[in-house]
Amino acid sequence: MKLVSIAVKGRRTYGIRTDRGVVDLGRRFGSRLPDLKALLAAGALAQAQEFLDATPDYAEPELSFLPPVDQPAKIFCVGMNYAEKRAEFGETGSAPTLFIRFPDSQTGHGCPVLKPAASDEFDYEGELAVVIGTAGRRIPRDRALDHVAGYSCYMDGSVRDWQHGWYTAGKNWQQTGAFGPWIVTADEVPDPHALAIRTYLNGRTVQDDNTGNMIHRIPALIEYISTFSALSPGDVIITGSPGGVGKKRTPPLFLKEGDVVEVEIERIGRLSNRVVRDAIAA
Amino acid sequence: MKLVSIAVKGRRTYGIRTDRGVVDLGRRFGSRLPDLKALLAAGALAQAQEFLDATPDYAEPELSFLPPVDQPAKIFCVGMNYAEKRAEFGETGSAPTLFIRFPDSQTGHGCPVLKPAASDEFDYEGELAVVIGTAGRRIPRDRALDHVAGYSCYMDGSVRDWQHGWYTAGKNWQQTGAFGPWIVTADEVPDPHALAIRTYLNGRTVQDDNTGNMIHRIPALIEYISTFSALSPGDVIITGSPGGVGKKRTPPLFLKEGDVVEVEIERIGRLSNRVVRDAIAA
Repeated sequence: MKLVSIAVKGRRTYGIRTDRGVVDLGRRFGSRLPDLKALLAAGALAQAQEFLDATPDYAEPELSFLPPVDQPAKIFCVGMNYAEKRAEFGETGSAPTLFIRFPDSQTGHGCPVLKPAASDEFDYEGELAVVIGTAGRRIPRDRALDHVAGYSCYMDGSVRDWQHGWYTAGKNWQQTGAFGPWIVTADEVPDPHALAIRTYLNGRTVQDDNTGNMIHRIPALIEYISTFSALSPGDVIITGSPGGVGKKRTPPLFLKEGDVVEVEIERIGRLSNRVVRDAIAA
Repeated sequence: MKLVSIAVKGRRTYGIRTDRGVVDLGRRFGSRLPDLKALLAAGALAQAQEFLDATPDYAEPELSFLPPVDQPAKIFCVGMNYAEKRAEFGETGSAPTLFIRFPDSQTGHGCPVLKPAASDEFDYEGELAVVIGTAGRRIPRDRALDHVAGYSCYMDGSVRDWQHGWYTAGKNWQQTGAFGPWIVTADEVPDPHALAIRTYLNGRTVQDDNTGNMIHRIPALIEYISTFSALSPGDVIITGSPGGVGKKRTPPLFLKEGDVVEVEIERIGRLSNRVVRDAIAA
């Protein structure tokens, strides 16, 4: 099942994305389950599934995509988690390296990502996003996947010339990341470490790897993070990007206005965003 | 004016702290302004001030302190912002180094801070906290202090042996930081860079400096952060700690169960917390 958060004529709702359109769950569940995070928190995926064959309420041209979880309480981002990327950046640490994105740094599928006017080094990074379904603290590795609601694509846009100290500044420019188009529920992804992951820039493949090549795998990441911080439904872990980022190419290849950046992950989908200049000039 | 968030017999509210007790503003303003963040967002400090001489509703023994802003949307933390601390850690970068704490990593005045069972290096850091009152993006340095609602004390507890890559893990253990006791409104702090700041461990002075010795001052920090991320009422910037942390002492001096750690800042107050073992054992 593909779960989406959307806006339709200015109204926010969420639903099931099918090939025929989107079934509005927000309308059906009402204020009891007002958004996708509430649906996950209520453990109501089975109730949602009952509407899988309902007549869709909207065709895709009528709606705009929001990040599937619009306001995660926590977005943990794993840096340097593929061998090729680590080699490019000379990373040698053994523990996962984590930084945090705030929700306002991301946008949905099909929406513009904003190239900061103050940056000449706005870079792409395609990543697998893990969405937590069941709360937990100190989750052991062998039960970690039971806490996953599903998976999505993430374009972890990076403002390289602002990655001063610990990445916070480089990763939190408003609307520089993209998340979506939807969450594919975990039952449809039997092995999240056997997925081709590719990033395209204007149709050209710029990152091409497989989630099997992560250094710290999803169960280990969930165990590690939940050792110190409670995870809640709707929290997101983005699991790092493969090599091939623009910063480490010769010559470098950065995003510019009008570019189309896409992240495609096997079994999940293809997240597509156009690069637009940040309206708030430097 | 000193603004507090408190719990009284299990009910959360907020108010004005006077020498005679706390005036409950939550009860007076009702659902229109349900918490201190809402009060700040409404720009209602003047309305609050009208109750400054009201008869207090509670004496301090009746209440427990919450972090003055219980759920900030963003908590930015500045690392390595005093000369002595930078020398201790060999920091040479010129831009501010930022990390993020999640709200569940903090607690209020008088509440236990939790020493992780998995750590032998739980360290104290006393810091000045800046609370945003007025939203903004790209706030120029010369107007930055207009966006400040007030100031508080922060004990930025640090789990040194988990400061793997970019500080996220070391700074986000649940209930390892403390914030409070209250916000002193900015009108009572004419110069936030002329305040003695001291940390005490079991009554012994372990950090002793002045906020005049910050490398990146508050207006510069607000300008820098708001360049990339919007600031909102209730957001918190903690401005770094002086030298003298336990990690860099010979021998090291870490927090252990039963210790009392206090952060005192001139004109603001004294934040006091006892160290308790994390009930969720490693």
